[in-house]
Amino acid sequence: MTRQFHLNAFLMGVGHHDAAWRHPASDPAGVTDLAHFRHLARVAERGTLDSVFLADGLSLLGDARYNALGGFEPLTLLAALAATTEHIGLIATVSTTFNEPFPVARAFASLDHLSGGRAGWNIVTSGNPAEARNFGLAEHVAHARRYARADEFLEVAKKLWDSWDADAVAADKARGIYAEEGRVRAIDHEGEHFTVAGPLNVQRSPQGRPLLVQAGSSEDGREFAARHAEAVFTAQQTLADAQAFYKDLKARTARHGRSPDAVRVLPGIVPVIGSTEAEARALDEQLTGLQVPAYGLAQLSGMLGTDLTGLPLDGPLPELPEERDINGNKSRFTLVADLARRDGLTIRQLIARLGGGRGHRVVAGTPEQIADSLQEWFTQGAADGFNIMPPLLPSGLEVFVDEVVPILRRRGLFRTEYTGRTLREHYGAPVTTEEGK
Amino acid sequence: MTRQFHLNAFLMGVGHHDAAWRHPASDPAGVTDLAHFRHLARVAERGTLDSVFLADGLSLLGDARYNALGGFEPLTLLAALAATTEHIGLIATVSTTFNEPFPVARAFASLDHLSGGRAGWNIVTSGNPAEARNFGLAEHVAHARRYARADEFLEVAKKLWDSWDADAVAADKARGIYAEEGRVRAIDHEGEHFTVAGPLNVQRSPQGRPLLVQAGSSEDGREFAARHAEAVFTAQQTLADAQAFYKDLKARTARHGRSPDAVRVLPGIVPVIGSTEAEARALDEQLTGLQVPAYGLAQLSGMLGTDLTGLPLDGPLPELPEERDINGNKSRFTLVADLARRDGLTIRQLIARLGGGRGHRVVAGTPEQIADSLQEWFTQGAADGFNIMPPLLPSGLEVFVDEVVPILRRRGLFRTEYTGRTLREHYGAPVTTEEGK
Repeated sequence: MTRQFHLNAFLMGVGHHDAAWRHPASDPAGVTDLAHFRHLARVAERGTLDSVFLADGLSLLGDARYNALGGFEPLTLLAALAATTEHIGLIATVSTTFNEPFPVARAFASLDHLSGGRAGWNIVTSGNPAEARNFGLAEHVAHARRYARADEFLEVAKKLWDSWDADAVAADKARGIYAEEGRVRAIDHEGEHFTVAGPLNVQRSPQGRPLLVQAGSSEDGREFAARHAEAVFTAQQTLADAQAFYKDLKARTARHGRSPDAVRVLPGIVPVIGSTEAEARALDEQLTGLQVPAYGLAQLSGMLGTDLTGLPLDGPLPELPEERDINGNKSRFTLVADLARRDGLTIRQLIARLGGGRGHRVVAGTPEQIADSLQEWFTQGAADGFNIMPPLLPSGLEVFVDEVVPILRRRGLFRTEYTGRTLREHYGAPVTTEEGK
Repeated sequence: MTRQFHLNAFLMGVGHHDAAWRHPASDPAGVTDLAHFRHLARVAERGTLDSVFLADGLSLLGDARYNALGGFEPLTLLAALAATTEHIGLIATVSTTFNEPFPVARAFASLDHLSGGRAGWNIVTSGNPAEARNFGLAEHVAHARRYARADEFLEVAKKLWDSWDADAVAADKARGIYAEEGRVRAIDHEGEHFTVAGPLNVQRSPQGRPLLVQAGSSEDGREFAARHAEAVFTAQQTLADAQAFYKDLKARTARHGRSPDAVRVLPGIVPVIGSTEAEARALDEQLTGLQVPAYGLAQLSGMLGTDLTGLPLDGPLPELPEERDINGNKSRFTLVADLARRDGLTIRQLIARLGGGRGHRVVAGTPEQIADSLQEWFTQGAADGFNIMPPLLPSGLEVFVDEVVPILRRRGLFRTEYTGRTLREHYGAPVTTEEGK
């Protein structure tokens, strides 16, 4: 059997394009409609995708005046989807900066039980100052400190997941013994950031631990991924950049004593699909034409850590800070700054380029062309799979599943049916057992 | 139309009795089985009950060696049930002591959207020192300080729920305006415990706010309920005590400028049901016979704030502290101490009496006798409805819904079908609108 793709459907409101809600094919009411997301999850399942994924932030990350924001919280939404799907993995983003390890470890254990072993955790450290202001902090927590906290957070969470042995529950009615003595243990963690007694108050879940996912591509982010992640989402604009990232991350993973295969790298792609290339380009242009410049300018200002208000849209970017001075999403800053420099883009052109995927690669073409591009990246050492970010939802996911997936299957690149029951089985990640036993 | 009952099904693992998991009718695997809870919610819905409810603690509240502990986290479980039920209200317990207002307000808004307006929040301040030790605290937060924090927590949560006006979302594709200017607002809360900028990142949900529920019966707890609660769960052993509590809470509510009808009082009841009274008593005795004394002793020690280990089971309680020296659940301490004193119980007898409902009233009898008892409390000024705590699940809920509910309906005491769509409509609580508008 040839090496195969992993495909994740990144669900975001009514589409990833920042003008998706204005497109005639979208229904903006979908952002708070369970039926909309249930449909998306079932479409993804029809396509035998590995997982669906929800990004997250702990504030309103953008101006609701101009975009369909204010939808569901990920863990509750994915719990609802667990009840109405059978196979698809469910990956929720949760911050280690503004939460405590006990309730987070517990919520994922609960989701893993609810879904029969389909829970995944996209671990983020939260990059936006607006999030800090919802938690009593005037300024954001420094980048390096966020990652130091995240590291200990993961250490505690793993201890909590391991605090019930896999064979702890005897449920022996005759003896009156529910859990065997010594197989449910306190963890008594005492560290720099956390002191947690344990044990967890949820018994060991089908996967033991959720699949651990990470999406930060800065130096700190890569080191964190190399230590903990089993799948990595990343934004890469060019094949060469993606190859370099892939190689670097695999090497780091090996340096931490893990197999390079233990981490799957999934670059994001916004597939703008048409039955002809011209039709795909027309859809892309239609979406660009629906963009609200004030929204794009505010988002771009945030990504670049630079207030662009009042600058001429048809002029160039002003001088930008260095990555080391960025305390938010460092890797996204560099990607956007490089993109503007490389292609000599005006502010308006940059807003158009970022509208589809906020820095993720946009590919407009026929299903055949999309499949070709995925295959190229996959076979050229740039990807183990892809984070699919449809510009419109549900239509963009439907066309990907119904038109692109069959091509990938015919080429032997993607599964034709689910062969496992858990998210870890979909990704080929081992079910973790207790450490030190 | 005569005044009618409200009925809540309090779901707990495979039953409220601490020996439920050992009974032949229970399947202990139910504690981590979504299908078990889906069945329970659907049975409650078949009985047109107002709501199902999940208690919670942020630690393992008991020795898993002797009881089927370690089940789901409430918000994720209820989100899953939202997706597979139509009418039943969904009330989750969440602590104000070990959480922050922004994510809690958000999770309930999300659950309210997921369920089409069926979310309720049982607000607790967390009474167990084991919980504090999972959050970096060597000692528990003092009772009065927990309630002061809870009060400000509610203030912030209400501001966040009101940060999106009901008519904020225009979703006007032509104008490119999603939310109208000024109808999504920062809250800029600065208080003693919390500083939160807002707005919430979930738009206004069907109920505006979840139904606010409270279950503390101490002095601090009653004052909190009188200010905020729309439904109150309470443990009362006798009609006289229940009448006194009912009268006191309604008077307090009025003193806070609210209608006494704005808060519904629901005493707990553990209905042990048989087709004859003798059959009901036999079931009660069978469950008592399955109790593990070591478990009951540990639970009793916790409730009384007194280590009872090593004392003779057939002897009396030792001298107990005063309620003012209890930092956990004050009202439960007093109830248990009074019960032991009033009926002159040995430790073993007290463990047997508390096995069914941890201090809630246990009534063993025929469906007719259970209905009589509910009707008496309802008509004698002791209750607006009841918190139903079946000793065994699912069997105890099934028999309540199929045998007791029809009697209540025939007597005109309980609805025969749902007349509203939201939890607030079930309880006759108004959908809240923004304050100060």
